[in-house]
Amino acid sequence: MARILIKDTKQKVGEKVQIMGRVMNVRLLSNVSFLQVQDYSGTIQTVWEKPVEAKVGDTVDIIGEVREDKRAKGGCEILGEELKVIGTSIEDLPFDLAKKDLNLQLNTLLDWRVLSLRHPKVQAIFKLYDLLLKHYGLVMRENGFTEIKTPKILGACSEGGANFFKIKYFDQSAFLAQSPQFYKQIMVGVFERVFEIGSTFRAEPHFTTRHVNEYISLDAEMGFIEGFRDVTMMLNKVLVEVFNKIKEEGAECLALHDVTDIVVPEKIPSVKLAEIRKIVKKKYDYALPEDTDIDPEGERLSGRYAKEEFNSDFIFITHYFWKDKPFYTMPSSDNPEETEGFDLIYKGVELVTGSQRIHKYDQLIANMKKKGIKPDGMEYYLDVFKFAMPPHGGWGMGSERLIQQLLGLGSVKEAILFPRDVKRLCP
Amino acid sequence: MARILIKDTKQKVGEKVQIMGRVMNVRLLSNVSFLQVQDYSGTIQTVWEKPVEAKVGDTVDIIGEVREDKRAKGGCEILGEELKVIGTSIEDLPFDLAKKDLNLQLNTLLDWRVLSLRHPKVQAIFKLYDLLLKHYGLVMRENGFTEIKTPKILGACSEGGANFFKIKYFDQSAFLAQSPQFYKQIMVGVFERVFEIGSTFRAEPHFTTRHVNEYISLDAEMGFIEGFRDVTMMLNKVLVEVFNKIKEEGAECLALHDVTDIVVPEKIPSVKLAEIRKIVKKKYDYALPEDTDIDPEGERLSGRYAKEEFNSDFIFITHYFWKDKPFYTMPSSDNPEETEGFDLIYKGVELVTGSQRIHKYDQLIANMKKKGIKPDGMEYYLDVFKFAMPPHGGWGMGSERLIQQLLGLGSVKEAILFPRDVKRLCP
Repeated sequence: MARILIKDTKQKVGEKVQIMGRVMNVRLLSNVSFLQVQDYSGTIQTVWEKPVEAKVGDTVDIIGEVREDKRAKGGCEILGEELKVIGTSIEDLPFDLAKKDLNLQLNTLLDWRVLSLRHPKVQAIFKLYDLLLKHYGLVMRENGFTEIKTPKILGACSEGGANFFKIKYFDQSAFLAQSPQFYKQIMVGVFERVFEIGSTFRAEPHFTTRHVNEYISLDAEMGFIEGFRDVTMMLNKVLVEVFNKIKEEGAECLALHDVTDIVVPEKIPSVKLAEIRKIVKKKYDYALPEDTDIDPEGERLSGRYAKEEFNSDFIFITHYFWKDKPFYTMPSSDNPEETEGFDLIYKGVELVTGSQRIHKYDQLIANMKKKGIKPDGMEYYLDVFKFAMPPHGGWGMGSERLIQQLLGLGSVKEAILFPRDVKRLCP
Repeated sequence: MARILIKDTKQKVGEKVQIMGRVMNVRLLSNVSFLQVQDYSGTIQTVWEKPVEAKVGDTVDIIGEVREDKRAKGGCEILGEELKVIGTSIEDLPFDLAKKDLNLQLNTLLDWRVLSLRHPKVQAIFKLYDLLLKHYGLVMRENGFTEIKTPKILGACSEGGANFFKIKYFDQSAFLAQSPQFYKQIMVGVFERVFEIGSTFRAEPHFTTRHVNEYISLDAEMGFIEGFRDVTMMLNKVLVEVFNKIKEEGAECLALHDVTDIVVPEKIPSVKLAEIRKIVKKKYDYALPEDTDIDPEGERLSGRYAKEEFNSDFIFITHYFWKDKPFYTMPSSDNPEETEGFDLIYKGVELVTGSQRIHKYDQLIANMKKKGIKPDGMEYYLDVFKFAMPPHGGWGMGSERLIQQLLGLGSVKEAILFPRDVKRLCP
């Protein structure tokens, strides 16, 4: 016999088939037993009217007859005839993978990642993550963007130099990329519209539910824009399309996490930073600290405002202050203390940062001087602005944070297979 | 007026349109001038019956009337009426981007990467690379694989410890991942079939045409295999499907590089390593050094043999020697000096390395001992084999090397936007 996939069993009602997979649940009754078996295509119940020996977690090879069963999820079950255990646990599992919820402390969940990932609800997180990667790529391409891969090892640190991991690179020092910022801008000069799905490294010594030291950034950069609104409109469009696909193809996984509806407005509301600072003071009596643009509590309240005022999970905050933004951010022409920079807040947490960039060499150099930044090591980047760069802008979006917010996970680390924080380098 | 894309001009014959893009070529005749303009959707010729001032490399905003022109590539051209230069070079270009071939030394090509990438033939390399990324993802998903992203910062170095870049990680030391090997195997226990497109770092002090220190690896790992042939068959299938798509969607880019036909055999020929060593000695009088499994000259001659004997650009070399393979490689049951490991040679260069892996805990530990490898820091990986791993195997494929070989590029660095070698950290 040859193995068939579980998803194909429903075409084999009445026939004898062979399946392989992992035992996800076992119910032993007095005269009948049930083994729930999962392969990469789906899950099916196998019924045994004779004694069987298999534990939750075992990998098995089963032969049996497919029977129609209207109550079963796939419309059928397998009446087991032969069972071979391919692999079994040689130690007790540290927790019950057959329970509906794992209910583990975050540290236990992550320490035992190699097993906790096998739980259906945890699997669902990463099935949705797979859909995000798939459709971000497809939707960006549909909108004319070319996928690029830029180096993660840098000769000089960009954007000021804080929070970089340092590497020994043969007889030199190097740094891990905090973002593909410079490279994606250079690539606007080549392909006009580019995107990247890439590793990003931040040496931030934070212990929060929303920070990790390594993550996957969904970046984009586009040329010939009239202003940053062209960027936010494109981002809005991309999110609508990507979320629609996730909703469509990820319905089962979303349901496992009790996410019943996700809506990205066709036109996400937008408020200036100076304005939202006033709003959260007035509506929620929270005074944002003077030395910050917006803090996590301010983001949370902006999200609340978006929900109450616009019934939206998303809100753009625009015109971040010049003093807080990197040197390549386009200052606002009508108010040089503000920039054409924005964040997108999703359910009260920053999901995206973006802006229009400066595209003229002289303006860029002047802005660097004004900020006291030396061009050392960035010459290769600055050079490109001598050669006719179009007006452009783009964004960087945290892929794991998107999934965290989508599912309402307590920590972004739950949305990363093997997260890295200040203390965690393993597994 | 609103800008339209160049690809849409052919639907606007007889109408006045606005386009934006970069001037790729200029021909000034006595009474007529031609500017070739490129945007992200295509290229078009604009014709000027009055004086215009624009240089190669300028970004421009053009208004004109679309005219049918059967000789033109897209079937039409634009009779220019207004031209606005959006951006112009403030320094002379270091080479002529309008020439058919750049003909630069590799170092010049890479030192001036921010401009050389704008040349149509160089652009074509990265358009094909984009197609590779797109279709590898799609084809893997069609075959039931889930995309994963695994950490690139590791707490301990795997696979022996040589050639790792070391990072200062807060108050610890860490390493950059040489491959997602351990993580993708762990993920076979979760999703059975997984793939990754990810950054890979190798601290190899090589100066060759085929090595770089950072590249993008196309990885895959699959469970419930009967042997490594299930892996090579899957790889064969994936390559057939991906190359067909590249051929279909990348025809113009391939033509720019004079690549007229690419064929992946439905059944790639396969020879044992011990056998190919004899063949290259006998047929080409080349004796492979005793202290190596196969060297670059051996690979080159294997490629020649594949072409002469099977008219194939591809050949599997199988059963690599136990002494040369990592500890997780499955030894051959009929000859413990060989393994169930393989390479795929593409036009005489190693493109893929793969194998069946050991999936039983005791065998894995025994194999490590036999190789003298200590489990320190790898416990998290070894642990998973206590919990019913199915038989599995997979591959790692060099994405840039695939494009290099496909196009016959002199160096793999030509297939990387911003390559990293021992000396090159910039741009």
